[in-house]
Amino acid sequence: MIDSDIQAAIHDMGRRARAASRELVKLSTEQKNAILLAMADEIQAREATILTENAKDLARAEENGLSKAMLDRLTLDPKRLTAIAEAVREVATLPDPVGEILTDWTRPNGLHITKKRVPIGVIGIIFESRPNVTTDAASLCFKTGNATLLRGGSEAIHSNVALAAALQAGGERAGLPADSIQLIPFTDRASVEHMARMDQYLDLIIPRGGKGLIEKVVATARMPVIKHYDGVCHVYVHSDADQEMAASIILNAKTQKPGVCNALETILVHRDIATNFYPLVGQKLAAAQVEVHADSEAQSLLGIANIPATEQDWSTEWLDLILSAKTVSGLDEAINHINQYGSHHTDSIVTNDRAVAERFQHEVDSAVVLHNASTRFNDGGEFGFGAEIGISTDKLHARGPMGLAELCSYKYLVDGSGQVR
Amino acid sequence: MIDSDIQAAIHDMGRRARAASRELVKLSTEQKNAILLAMADEIQAREATILTENAKDLARAEENGLSKAMLDRLTLDPKRLTAIAEAVREVATLPDPVGEILTDWTRPNGLHITKKRVPIGVIGIIFESRPNVTTDAASLCFKTGNATLLRGGSEAIHSNVALAAALQAGGERAGLPADSIQLIPFTDRASVEHMARMDQYLDLIIPRGGKGLIEKVVATARMPVIKHYDGVCHVYVHSDADQEMAASIILNAKTQKPGVCNALETILVHRDIATNFYPLVGQKLAAAQVEVHADSEAQSLLGIANIPATEQDWSTEWLDLILSAKTVSGLDEAINHINQYGSHHTDSIVTNDRAVAERFQHEVDSAVVLHNASTRFNDGGEFGFGAEIGISTDKLHARGPMGLAELCSYKYLVDGSGQVR
Repeated sequence: MIDSDIQAAIHDMGRRARAASRELVKLSTEQKNAILLAMADEIQAREATILTENAKDLARAEENGLSKAMLDRLTLDPKRLTAIAEAVREVATLPDPVGEILTDWTRPNGLHITKKRVPIGVIGIIFESRPNVTTDAASLCFKTGNATLLRGGSEAIHSNVALAAALQAGGERAGLPADSIQLIPFTDRASVEHMARMDQYLDLIIPRGGKGLIEKVVATARMPVIKHYDGVCHVYVHSDADQEMAASIILNAKTQKPGVCNALETILVHRDIATNFYPLVGQKLAAAQVEVHADSEAQSLLGIANIPATEQDWSTEWLDLILSAKTVSGLDEAINHINQYGSHHTDSIVTNDRAVAERFQHEVDSAVVLHNASTRFNDGGEFGFGAEIGISTDKLHARGPMGLAELCSYKYLVDGSGQVR
Repeated sequence: MIDSDIQAAIHDMGRRARAASRELVKLSTEQKNAILLAMADEIQAREATILTENAKDLARAEENGLSKAMLDRLTLDPKRLTAIAEAVREVATLPDPVGEILTDWTRPNGLHITKKRVPIGVIGIIFESRPNVTTDAASLCFKTGNATLLRGGSEAIHSNVALAAALQAGGERAGLPADSIQLIPFTDRASVEHMARMDQYLDLIIPRGGKGLIEKVVATARMPVIKHYDGVCHVYVHSDADQEMAASIILNAKTQKPGVCNALETILVHRDIATNFYPLVGQKLAAAQVEVHADSEAQSLLGIANIPATEQDWSTEWLDLILSAKTVSGLDEAINHINQYGSHHTDSIVTNDRAVAERFQHEVDSAVVLHNASTRFNDGGEFGFGAEIGISTDKLHARGPMGLAELCSYKYLVDGSGQVR
């Protein structure tokens, strides 16, 4: 297919998604939940087909020499497919934020103004290899009354097409409007650009994947983009900290799941307690096989093998059992370091001084700022949101964990009795 | 100056604005209000200088043959300068949304989560000829703890530089951090592009001006943009409407201030009342010298001279004493017409049937949807917001009138006692 035909096809899908969004606002919560259950049933009913399509992706992936880890992320089996269907059923059990009255008031002229939560409209999701993003993203967007246009990577294209078809077909039997969930069948880079420029049809794009993909979407998109690049997360240990607590938080934040965005990457230690604290935490880090990149003051105090830290290390998201360690003169230096080198994602302070914690939380410019707790708690599930579409490091619309409410917009309804100006 | 030098200079301003934003979060409401009053005083103290600079802009504008209307928008005099200073003083009297606790809750593990309103950070404002935008935008952004980078048009460059200098210098005497309010001294188009790509320093861009300017910003910007293009606003007169009320709302919405975005552009009239209603509203429109572009059914019924409507007319923002008129078969056709041809800005229904009004308000996909009231009420002042930075037709972050709260972000503060996962 030549590029202008691909563009025309994507535009046509956008136009149909917009039309679907006009129908989606008419569904009640009960109707939406019934549709979600029908979608889940259809995924299981189509198990054979979906696994056959998945096998095509896996065969090509092996030909292309994809890594074991990538192959594993791509692989579906009956158990994983059941989990995917269960996740869709879970979404049906979540409270529906649509229709909630956020606030209302009456003006002196008698006009009554209601600010009401409504769907955003049409959401574009651009993602890489994991096929379960197709069903996760589409079901959350649908629950909030949005139409979705999905564009997955080439590695999983057969699986994605099969899953999206199951969602749409299963949903339609329970009343899902046509074209509510569409998967773009093109995986060339140009198709991402066509989507990103299509602001007449797409109200929002959420890219989920590597930094290269997100950069491309940000550079091209005409509509809002919700994203996060890095999670360069810090724990600052203040001079009065409970040092056992600090060591336990650091160990947890670094090692419990090192490959995720809210994992710890750099510790900042107050100089006054360096002599006591570094050996304490050093021992625990060594036991957990964490490699430390330490500044000159920490080097000998840690009492374990370590690597001299470079300037580059302070802004590195290790995503591995590696930790940067820096000694600071106090709260101000810690805050300045985090605001300069961090990624405005998640940072934590360990201190027993309430006033010190409050200054840290006030002045550190990050989505989630913790006191005496692990950075790993920046998470929709841990916040009690029930579902999470991602974590945003943007400051507009959604910041931090994004639940269903963040997939909504609002509108103002104004009721009068003939008022004019 | 060559372009790479301009780019470097703008980047340096961005870097300094970011540093200023770190200091701005430390100011209390009282400190901010004192700074605003000092800014207003300084504008009046510098009256002579500002008017001299304004005269330079006016002289060049006359040389360039700018229209009378443009010259008037550009002109400052002692009375207008006093009004500008008064507007800054007004901002000091508004409640400060920063620091407000939006919600808080405790998790089963004891973590206490607080969602708190905070400044966005650095806001870029790109605007055209009116110099008062400099002080309006900067004072509202400052009140909400944001640093601003202003880039005005070439027509008002001397006035803008003088006004921004007065704000910064007056403010500094009362404790305003350096570089909180900076005006970019370049007026070439490339400087807009440099700003729009500078997402490491700018959290948000608000373009205020013509469609060409907004289009350019949207196409280039890497950060969120809050904007509105058109206001193609509708009034739909349902079959059961109080026809006198409908005529009065239409007249008000069309004629009270025809050049603004919330003015009425198209009426939709239910066929069942066309014979009665068109002559009634036609007479009033004729008396107000409104030119009507009417569909075939309305043409003779209006009882006044009119022009046959074209397809193009349905999506035209007249911004003048011109009105498009279309006859519809009922609520569904009205909603579909508005969603197809409108601009998702402001639309109103006149009906006595609560259920009909509710369906209209639910299904019309616009920022503000009214019932029995003039479209002119989509306005920050009329909503009681005290100040308005603009009206957004976007669906993310801010929709409809934007007050001070919409110039804020939020962050999550999490307080624990050593929790780990």
